[in-house]
Amino acid sequence: MIVILKKTAERQQVELFENWLRSMGLELHKSVGENHTIIGLVGDTSRVDMESILALDIVETVKRIQEPYKNANRKFHEEDTVITLANGAQIGGGRFLVMAGPCSVETEEQIISVAQSVKAAGAQVLRGGAFKPRTSPYAFQGLHEEGIRLLLKAREATGLPIVTEIMDAKHLPLFEDIDMIQVGARNMQNFELLKELGKLRKPVLIKRGMANTLQELLMSAEYVMAGGNEQVILCERGIRTFETATRNTMDLSVIPVLHQLTHLPVVVDPSHATGRWELVAPMALAATASGADGLMIEVHNDPEHALCDGPQSLRPDRFAGMMEKVWAIQPYADRSFSSAVAFS
Amino acid sequence: MIVILKKTAERQQVELFENWLRSMGLELHKSVGENHTIIGLVGDTSRVDMESILALDIVETVKRIQEPYKNANRKFHEEDTVITLANGAQIGGGRFLVMAGPCSVETEEQIISVAQSVKAAGAQVLRGGAFKPRTSPYAFQGLHEEGIRLLLKAREATGLPIVTEIMDAKHLPLFEDIDMIQVGARNMQNFELLKELGKLRKPVLIKRGMANTLQELLMSAEYVMAGGNEQVILCERGIRTFETATRNTMDLSVIPVLHQLTHLPVVVDPSHATGRWELVAPMALAATASGADGLMIEVHNDPEHALCDGPQSLRPDRFAGMMEKVWAIQPYADRSFSSAVAFS
Amino acid sequence: MIVILKKTAERQQVELFENWLRSMGLELHKSVGENHTIIGLVGDTSRVDMESILALDIVETVKRIQEPYKNANRKFHEEDTVITLANGAQIGGGRFLVMAGPCSVETEEQIISVAQSVKAAGAQVLRGGAFKPRTSPYAFQGLHEEGIRLLLKAREATGLPIVTEIMDAKHLPLFEDIDMIQVGARNMQNFELLKELGKLRKPVLIKRGMANTLQELLMSAEYVMAGGNEQVILCERGIRTFETATRNTMDLSVIPVLHQLTHLPVVVDPSHATGRWELVAPMALAATASGADGLMIEVHNDPEHALCDGPQSLRPDRFAGMMEKVWAIQPYADRSFSSAVAFS
Amino acid sequence: MIVILKKTAERQQVELFENWLRSMGLELHKSVGENHTIIGLVGDTSRVDMESILALDIVETVKRIQEPYKNANRKFHEEDTVITLANGAQIGGGRFLVMAGPCSVETEEQIISVAQSVKAAGAQVLRGGAFKPRTSPYAFQGLHEEGIRLLLKAREATGLPIVTEIMDAKHLPLFEDIDMIQVGARNMQNFELLKELGKLRKPVLIKRGMANTLQELLMSAEYVMAGGNEQVILCERGIRTFETATRNTMDLSVIPVLHQLTHLPVVVDPSHATGRWELVAPMALAATASGADGLMIEVHNDPEHALCDGPQSLRPDRFAGMMEKVWAIQPYADRSFSSAVAFS
Repeated sequence: MIVILKKTAERQQVELFENWLRSMGLELHKSVGENHTIIGLVGDTSRVDMESILALDIVETVKRIQEPYKNANRKFHEEDTVITLANGAQIGGGRFLVMAGPCSVETEEQIISVAQSVKAAGAQVLRGGAFKPRTSPYAFQGLHEEGIRLLLKAREATGLPIVTEIMDAKHLPLFEDIDMIQVGARNMQNFELLKELGKLRKPVLIKRGMANTLQELLMSAEYVMAGGNEQVILCERGIRTFETATRNTMDLSVIPVLHQLTHLPVVVDPSHATGRWELVAPMALAATASGADGLMIEVHNDPEHALCDGPQSLRPDRFAGMMEKVWAIQPYADRSFSSAVAFS
Repeated sequence: MIVILKKTAERQQVELFENWLRSMGLELHKSVGENHTIIGLVGDTSRVDMESILALDIVETVKRIQEPYKNANRKFHEEDTVITLANGAQIGGGRFLVMAGPCSVETEEQIISVAQSVKAAGAQVLRGGAFKPRTSPYAFQGLHEEGIRLLLKAREATGLPIVTEIMDAKHLPLFEDIDMIQVGARNMQNFELLKELGKLRKPVLIKRGMANTLQELLMSAEYVMAGGNEQVILCERGIRTFETATRNTMDLSVIPVLHQLTHLPVVVDPSHATGRWELVAPMALAATASGADGLMIEVHNDPEHALCDGPQSLRPDRFAGMMEKVWAIQPYADRSFSSAVAFS
Repeated sequence: MIVILKKTAERQQVELFENWLRSMGLELHKSVGENHTIIGLVGDTSRVDMESILALDIVETVKRIQEPYKNANRKFHEEDTVITLANGAQIGGGRFLVMAGPCSVETEEQIISVAQSVKAAGAQVLRGGAFKPRTSPYAFQGLHEEGIRLLLKAREATGLPIVTEIMDAKHLPLFEDIDMIQVGARNMQNFELLKELGKLRKPVLIKRGMANTLQELLMSAEYVMAGGNEQVILCERGIRTFETATRNTMDLSVIPVLHQLTHLPVVVDPSHATGRWELVAPMALAATASGADGLMIEVHNDPEHALCDGPQSLRPDRFAGMMEKVWAIQPYADRSFSSAVAFS
Repeated sequence: MIVILKKTAERQQVELFENWLRSMGLELHKSVGENHTIIGLVGDTSRVDMESILALDIVETVKRIQEPYKNANRKFHEEDTVITLANGAQIGGGRFLVMAGPCSVETEEQIISVAQSVKAAGAQVLRGGAFKPRTSPYAFQGLHEEGIRLLLKAREATGLPIVTEIMDAKHLPLFEDIDMIQVGARNMQNFELLKELGKLRKPVLIKRGMANTLQELLMSAEYVMAGGNEQVILCERGIRTFETATRNTMDLSVIPVLHQLTHLPVVVDPSHATGRWELVAPMALAATASGADGLMIEVHNDPEHALCDGPQSLRPDRFAGMMEKVWAIQPYADRSFSSAVAFS
C-alpha cells in the first residue's frame, strides 16, 4: 500500500500517523519530494482500511498494491482449481464443462426431454431454474420446491448433475441434494447469502453482477471461500452499458484477465448476456476460443412457449450443432494463463 | 402494447397468434404495411409477457406502451404520496425531509452526539447503519443487534425517528421498533426481501441499484406495494459509469423524471453517490433545487476515525452550514411535476 | 414508423397532424385504444424527422421500425460486400483479412522489419500510424508526411498494402497512394471528414467510437456510402464502461449483430480494446470464432521502446504463434449471418 | 510518479531502468518491500511517458501523482479565470452567464425574435447553430454561411454576443466576427481543430464528449491553451450510460470537481443532456445551486416546428419563468471551490 501525503501536511500530524501505522506492525518507507511525500507500507496490509486513511486531512491519495482477496488469488495459489462432479465431469485446469438446460423447470416431461437432448449433444450438467428472480412481481416466479423435485427426477433419468439458482438462504434445506448452487447476478453482493454458502462443501457458481467489477466478483468469491468452501466457479453473463443492440454487453476479456488473477474456473453464459438465441452460438464459440473453462447455455425444446426467457433459448438441434464447433475449437483455445502453461 | 410482425410471417401462424391474443381478452387493431404488419393491443396488457411474444418466429419486435407498474404509477394515482413519521415530520407533496447521521453506529456517545447535532441543524430523521454491506469479508460489518439498540437509545434521547438498513429478511424481528427500513442499492432486486417488506405497514426506503434503470426501481417499489405496503420512498445514490472522478455518477435528472412517473417521494443520498465530503453540499443543494423531496446525508463527529466511509462524512458544523442554504433554496425548487402543480 | 398519441390530444390537432403526414405521401393506419391512439405510417419514412414529431404536444412517443440507414442495410443488399486489395487479398463473404503492424511508424528499419515479420506470419495488410491522435498536446503525435513515406517504402519492400489513419480532411493529398484509410474512434462522428471520404473510391475502415451505438456506427458508414464510396469496413475496438481491468470493454457480440444488420465486413482490433498485449491473442481468437471478417493487430519488434502504445503490442514471434491458432479456428467460426448461409 | 516493480525483476534490469530515469533529471526514492519495490520519481515528470514505462517487463504498475495538464490546472493558477465579452458580460469567479437561443438558425425573423425574448429574460449571450452535426447524412445540416450571417444580424439587433459551433477548421474564416466558438461533444477530441483554435485569441467553449472523462476534457482545454489561447470555458452536456429515461445522464458533480481541478469557468447545457424540455428547468436550477458559472439553454419560439431538436427547446415564456428562479437560487449556490473562497 502506498500513501501520498499532501504538501500542506504538518509534521506533527504526519508523525502521529506514522506511529499509528507502525503500531499495526507495518514497516514504512518514505520518499520526500518537492510536492508530495510518499509512504510505502510493507507488511500485511489486508487489514488496513483504505477508506479510513483516505479520510485523514493530511492524505492526498492511497493506492493498494496487493489485491484485497487472498483465497481466490492466483498469487497465493498458483495451481488451477479443478472441481469434480458426481458423474466424474470436471472443470478447471483444461477440463471444459458444458451446463445446459431450460431457463425454468416447467413439467416433468419438459425437463427430462431437455436433459436427454443436452446430454446427447455432450453437456455434462443440467441447468434449470426453480426459483426465478423476476423484475416484475406479476411475472412467473418458478415452481420452487416442485421445480427442485423435477430437477432431481431428471438427474435420476439421465445421470446429469444439477445446477440451479438460490435466491434466499432460507431455501437452503431444499438444495441439499443439488450438485451445484448458482448465485444470480442480482445476488452477487447478497453478502448474507454468500456467508451461508461458505459453510457448505459443494460447488457454488457465482454470476457477475451487471455493474460489478472483476475485483468485486473476486471479493464475492472470497466471501464464500473465507467460510472454508473452496469450490467456487465464476460466471460472466454480461454487463450493463449504453449499447442496446444486445440485452447486456458480454465482456469476454474477463476470461484471460480472471485466469491471470485467480485460480478459480471461469465460465460464460451467452444466453443471458445477449438475450437472443441467434447470438448464443457465436458468443459460445468466442468464449471457448478465449480460454473459458466452460459454458452455461439455455436450451428449450419449445422456446416459443417457454414460461420465461424464450427468445434466448436454443432448440436442441441448434445446441447440438453448436457443440460440434465448440469441440473443434476448444483444443486451440488460448490457455496461456492456466497453471500448466504459466507457472510450471 | 404494439406487436410488429415480420414480413415473412405466414398467414396461418398470424391467425393462430391473433386468436391467442383475443383469448386473453384483448382487442386487436391491425395495420398492414408493405414491409411490416403492426398489431395494436388494447385492454389490460399487464399480464401479457413480452418475452413470450418476442420468442415467436413471426414477431419482429414488441413495444410496451403502458408501464408495467401500477401501484407506483402516477397515471393511476395522481396525488403525491405523503408519509408521516412518529415525530410528525412528513415527506412528499412539497414536505421536505432531511435524514442525517453516521455511516455506522459505533458507540452510544457517538450516536447520541451526532443525533443531537443533526437535530439542532434541522434534520428530522436519524440515519445510522447497524448492518453494513461490505465488499470485503474482512471489513467491519456493523454492530448488528447492539447497533439497533443504540439507535433506539438515540431516538429516546432526541425524539428523532430512525432509518436503518436491513440486509436479510431473517433480521426483521430486530427492526420491529425501527421507524423506516432502508433497502440498500445491492439489495434493490433482492425480491425475497422486498416481498417480506411488503407485508409490513411502515415506510420502506429503496435505494436505486448502481446499474438499475428507473423502471426497475419502480418495479422494486411495486414488489413492496403489491404486498399492501404503500409507504415507499425512492432514493438516488449514484450509478456506475466510466467516470472515475467521483465514486459513482449522481443522476439528478431522475428527480423530475420520477416525479412524472410516480407519486412516491424521491430523495437523494449525495454522500454515497460522490464518496467525497467536499462534494456533498453542492450536490445536496442541486438535488434540492431540482425538486427532491428530501436528503439523506452522512454526518460524523469525527470522520477521521469513522469505522467506515469516513471520507464522505460531513462534520456537524459543515452540515449545519449546508442546511442553511438548503432551506434558502428549497422554496424556489422546481415542483412542476408535483400533484399540486400538475394535476389540481 | 409508429406514432402514439396522448390520451389528451384534441381532435382538431390530431386531424391537422394526420393531414401533414399524408402530405408527405404516407399512408396512415390508426388504432384507437382506451388510453392511447396508435398511428402506423406506411411508405418511405426515411425523410420523416422523429424529433419533430416527438416535439408535438399531442405525441407521447414515436418508434422507428425501419432502420435509418439504407446503403449499409442488409435488407436492401443481401450479398456480403467483398473488398479486394492491390495484392489480391480480400475481406468479406468468408475471406478473412489480417492487418498488422506497429502503432506508430518510427524509422525505415523498424517499419520494414515489422512488415516482413507480419507478412511471414500471414498478415496481408500492413498497419502503421503516421498521424496519431494523442490525448495530451505534449505527447508524440506521429511522423506525419515522413511516416506516410516510410509506409510506402515498406509496401515497396514487402508488397503489403497499407492501412493508416487520417485525422483531418486537409491531409487527404498525402493519402493518395495509401490503400485503405482508417477513421479513428474519436473521429467516427467527424461528419465533415466522412463526407470527404465518401468522394474517394478506396476502402475506408471506420472504428466504432468509445460511446457509440451500432446504429451510429452504421450511420457513419452511411455518410461515406451516401457519397458513392461503397468500400467500407467496420471495426470494433472497445467501448467505455465502468470496468477498469481492461482499457476498454471489447464488445464481441457486435460481430454477429452487425452481420445481421449490414453486408459490410466487420473486423476487430483487440490491441486497442484491451490495452494489454497478454490479452490480444485470446481476444483475437474469440473474434475469429465469433465470425469476424478480419483482425487488426499491433505488432512491434521492440515494444519496450515503442514511442506509443508499447504495452499493447505483440512481439513478432508471439504474433506468429497467435496466427497459427487463428487459422486453425477460422474454419469453425460461426458464419450463420453471412449471405452465403443466410440468404442463398 | 510512482513505479512499482515486479518481484521477479532482475537487479541488472532494474539498474538500467534507474539510470535511464536519472538521465531525465529525475530524483529517485526507493522502498524495497517483500513483494514489490516502489520507486518514487521526484522532478518534472510531465515529459515521462507512462505507457513506455508500463511496457517494460520489470514494471508491474505506474501511477501518476501530478496531473498531466498544466495551463488548465488550479494548482498552478489559483485565481478563477474571468472572461469578458463585448457587451461587458462576464463569466467566472462568481459572475454567472446565461447563453440561450435556438438549436438551429432558421430565418431572420426567427433568430431575431428569439434573441429579443432571451435578452428580455436576462440571457447575456445568443446561441444558435449554423453548422449542425447530425447523425444521419439525410438530416438538415444547418444554414452554414447564411446562418452565420443571420446570427450577426441578430447581434446587431440586440447587442447580444454570439456563440456558435464549428465543425471543421476549414470554416474558421466564417467565424471571424463570432464572439465565442463552440466545440461540440463529438469534436472534443478533434485535436487538429483544437490546435487551430489555440491560435485564436477569443473564447472557446468545449463540450465534454459523451464518453470522456474530466481529465480528457481538461487535456482538450490544454490543447487550446498550449497554443496561447487562455479563454476556455468547459461545458457539461451529459454522458452516455445504461439509463434510457433521459437522452444522456447529466453528471452534475463535475461542477464542484472541475472547480477543484481547474480555474476555468464551467457551464452546463441541460437541453442536450436531457433531451426533454420539461427537464430543462429543474436541471438548470440544480446546476445553478451546485455552483455552475453559467448555463446554455435551447429556446425556440415555435418548438413544434423547429428543424431540429424541438423536443428539448423551451418556449420563451417558460425560459423567462425559469430565469426568475435561477436568479433567486444563484446567491445561495455552493462556491466553496472558487478562488475567492478557497484560496484568498
